[in-house]
Amino acid sequence: MSDMPKSIRIREEGPREGFQIEKNFISTERKIEFINALGKTGLHHIQTVSFVDPRRVPNSADAEAVVAGIIPVPGVHFTALWLNDKGFERALATKKLHMEGGLNVSASDAFLKRNQNRTVAEQLASLPASIALYKKHNVPIEGGLISAAFGCNFQGDVTPARVVDLATQMIDIGAGEGVTLKRLNLADTMGWATPMGVKRVVGAVREKFPALELCLHLHDTRGMGVANAFAGLEMGVSLYDAACAGLGGCPFAGHAGAAGNVCTEDLVFMCDEMGIETGVNLQALIECAALAEDVVGHPLPGSVMRGGSLKRLREKLQAA
Amino acid sequence: MSDMPKSIRIREEGPREGFQIEKNFISTERKIEFINALGKTGLHHIQTVSFVDPRRVPNSADAEAVVAGIIPVPGVHFTALWLNDKGFERALATKKLHMEGGLNVSASDAFLKRNQNRTVAEQLASLPASIALYKKHNVPIEGGLISAAFGCNFQGDVTPARVVDLATQMIDIGAGEGVTLKRLNLADTMGWATPMGVKRVVGAVREKFPALELCLHLHDTRGMGVANAFAGLEMGVSLYDAACAGLGGCPFAGHAGAAGNVCTEDLVFMCDEMGIETGVNLQALIECAALAEDVVGHPLPGSVMRGGSLKRLREKLQAA
Repeated sequence: MSDMPKSIRIREEGPREGFQIEKNFISTERKIEFINALGKTGLHHIQTVSFVDPRRVPNSADAEAVVAGIIPVPGVHFTALWLNDKGFERALATKKLHMEGGLNVSASDAFLKRNQNRTVAEQLASLPASIALYKKHNVPIEGGLISAAFGCNFQGDVTPARVVDLATQMIDIGAGEGVTLKRLNLADTMGWATPMGVKRVVGAVREKFPALELCLHLHDTRGMGVANAFAGLEMGVSLYDAACAGLGGCPFAGHAGAAGNVCTEDLVFMCDEMGIETGVNLQALIECAALAEDVVGHPLPGSVMRGGSLKRLREKLQAA
Repeated sequence: MSDMPKSIRIREEGPREGFQIEKNFISTERKIEFINALGKTGLHHIQTVSFVDPRRVPNSADAEAVVAGIIPVPGVHFTALWLNDKGFERALATKKLHMEGGLNVSASDAFLKRNQNRTVAEQLASLPASIALYKKHNVPIEGGLISAAFGCNFQGDVTPARVVDLATQMIDIGAGEGVTLKRLNLADTMGWATPMGVKRVVGAVREKFPALELCLHLHDTRGMGVANAFAGLEMGVSLYDAACAGLGGCPFAGHAGAAGNVCTEDLVFMCDEMGIETGVNLQALIECAALAEDVVGHPLPGSVMRGGSLKRLREKLQAA
């Protein structure tokens, strides 16, 4: 366990991932209330909304209004998601968001064909245009993301060699455009990873790119989220995407155990108990998780929000 | 990861743990239906009922009738729980159960005081009488169990040294009565364990008793169940208690994320994907989990029952 980091950073994706999949429209006020509550937990990076077509994602229709309601907090990055130039320009126009460019590529042709009607080769070929757009607006590009990095529901398993190859192509394309990628997000978009799989992929990428900071984006579709994060910790990974209360992208939302991203407060709890700093106040985060359930109006899959923090329990025992 | 076992065994506790906490009475027929379905999954050890006071546990009132309905399966041990001599004698009288004696001790005086109104010292002092009862009925004693081995809601943290000390006392008392304990169950009764905690306690016990087989009983109260099991696998532990669909002992039953034991099919899924044999048919187990939800009448926290097996997905992709 010598590689275990002393501290990690968490990028909260609950508001964006959680609200976009809800069928009922959540009021702008309640979205803002949740985001501002998260802003007080110690989380330094909160993805708030997506600038996408509201005909496809009805809960994204009020993205500008939600961003307008965010109360800035020093040191906290409020961010957004976009999928094309128009969405990027809408995010930029708010003048309130932390803007960061990213290069995305999927490890699965079948997934990409289905979702964006293009091949991985075509996606790679489009990266220089993305870079040019970010450069034009002076938006820094620090990270890349490989989706379906552990497997794909429409194509099957993805080998570590495939991930290393895609990372290499991405880094080379960036370098060709004068961009040095400092960070790579390995996304288990469809819940194919296991702890050993995480170790294998992280190990393979790190062997080739030892200086690259790795981030894990772990969907909890098959209940492996926290275990996969632990495997990441054992590999020294110190950056994780997560979603408060386990909010997020799952067609079974509302069912017990259904799952988007790994649950933020469960991850923070594990780190707290293992002596790994997160900078996040667990109790405040648990209160946000309860608020999230109230806002969406149905149970969410987080565990610590129900089981409670041990730190608080210890304080009560000591006071007794 | 060199200690990772090639195969593990799982002791299913779903029927006993899951039904006993339900407020509504579940019909005898449906209990039997679920147990007999589990009997066809490849699980070799299924804890079916508890012989306890039905005034305290209404769903245990039909224990004898449930056992009478079990269809024997060669190689499958159907077992039961009891808490005193009377319960043991009721189990024995069914003449249908696999009978195995066990020595139990709690790592927490506060927990024991609250539940059984006695101290740990008194509990240890009572072990010879338990051994005598089992001997009288020719019931073998192979294992011991330490409850609250990772912490206690009423007392706080439990150190690995405390667990080793209790194991030592238990083993010595057994030896004094001519019983050699071959197995020790480390029970995280109240969900205090983390993966690092599992590694520390397992490591400390194994260092003193290298020949003792260890079992982990991991409640998922704070979402650490699967991660804790993975830590156990990394330490070479090859015996786990688990509950189909995540059935079990939790006052929040019916809520998403509420949790008893670690979910059997989630554990089997992780092992399948990491090349560790369990002897269990995951698809059959997923069907049992769906049946369990139908029997209790509310969602249960298992994930793979919703996310689905990857083995099946791969077969579909290959056939397409």
